[in-house]
Amino acid sequence: MMHDVKKTIAVLGGTGKEGGGLALRWAHRGHPVIIGSRTAERAEEAAAEMRETLGGAGSVKGLANPDAAAAADIVVLSVPYAAQQATVSEVATQLAGKILIDVTVPLVPPKVSRVQLPAGGSAVEAVQKLLGDGVRVVSAFQNISAHHLTKLDEDVECDVLVCADDPAAADEVVALAEEIGLTAWNAGPLCNSVVAEALTSVLISLNRRYKVPGTGIRITGVSKDA
Amino acid sequence: MMHDVKKTIAVLGGTGKEGGGLALRWAHRGHPVIIGSRTAERAEEAAAEMRETLGGAGSVKGLANPDAAAAADIVVLSVPYAAQQATVSEVATQLAGKILIDVTVPLVPPKVSRVQLPAGGSAVEAVQKLLGDGVRVVSAFQNISAHHLTKLDEDVECDVLVCADDPAAADEVVALAEEIGLTAWNAGPLCNSVVAEALTSVLISLNRRYKVPGTGIRITGVSKDA
Repeated sequence: MMHDVKKTIAVLGGTGKEGGGLALRWAHRGHPVIIGSRTAERAEEAAAEMRETLGGAGSVKGLANPDAAAAADIVVLSVPYAAQQATVSEVATQLAGKILIDVTVPLVPPKVSRVQLPAGGSAVEAVQKLLGDGVRVVSAFQNISAHHLTKLDEDVECDVLVCADDPAAADEVVALAEEIGLTAWNAGPLCNSVVAEALTSVLISLNRRYKVPGTGIRITGVSKDA
Repeated sequence: MMHDVKKTIAVLGGTGKEGGGLALRWAHRGHPVIIGSRTAERAEEAAAEMRETLGGAGSVKGLANPDAAAAADIVVLSVPYAAQQATVSEVATQLAGKILIDVTVPLVPPKVSRVQLPAGGSAVEAVQKLLGDGVRVVSAFQNISAHHLTKLDEDVECDVLVCADDPAAADEVVALAEEIGLTAWNAGPLCNSVVAEALTSVLISLNRRYKVPGTGIRITGVSKDA
């Protein structure tokens, strides 16, 4: 762990499976967690459910997205691709000076097993452009199955690729991922996020073709113990 | 192995490290191999060197690219990105009805650790478009380090993502990869090649940041033995 004082993490879209899984794991590790949603009511509902799962072991509350972002040190964005830009715009002011971890996968239903990247490359680069240099945008967690995150004692067999134009911000997110039992790598600048964003479609394609529930990737030829 | 009679494989750009490594492995497994290059002389030079490495165990000859493509059942393209389109144009007629395995990585020097994809997505889709439906274009091998290929008895710690709009062509290339000791996966349509093409920059970025010679990927959550 890098910090003695645990940073407060808001998960916008924390009512969904992927965001909820991440929120649960961070709360379990002692981070104050705020679930963000479009309405405070839905957010608090999800937070109450999570408190029950944790059996009183964590601090979880629910707020509307802008309030959640305002109250947090670090903000995670885990919403459907179609809601990405609108959600970011709504909390832009509250993000100033903070790290925004974007988990968005630019899937275009119904053909989610085909890579269909936005014009210009990765979805997260458009978010960084929208927010400007005052927010340190980091891309991560796109390839981690929500299913595995939710089972707290389960090993996740998929590495996390972390990309950011600010390497220190990427390193901080690598540490946050490792706190919740994931293996994470600083994979370079934000434009490299194309790999993580597109990889999700490849993994869905592999799941279907090879009839397995959840493929992932491991990085080889490098070790965290070295 | 899928075939009793070994198909003849031409490797355009087989004088380079990556193409040469693949050619060496297929020749070692009994495929008649043709090294293609811009001039027959350079191709034959590389072929002679390879014959020496193999100690008379394989069939390797060298021809100019169009003659190499004409004489082969399956053609592999392993040239620098800047030469991709010109090389393909030069052999378009000779490719009719065949499988073209494109190994090209769209690196843009000097920033090879940054993903810089061509407008419109993957480089290989532009090749399929240029050649039309009469050639079955398959994307593969972009992430395999030439260094490991050249050492014939070395395990390659990196899986091969194989993409093609013709699934049967992809399966044939998966089998060719497995013949030379690689683990390969049919990763969906040609547009999914974005992942493999962009991943090379991420791996270069990881090599530099973590100071290791050769990172790779493994697909998890699925087994060839299942």
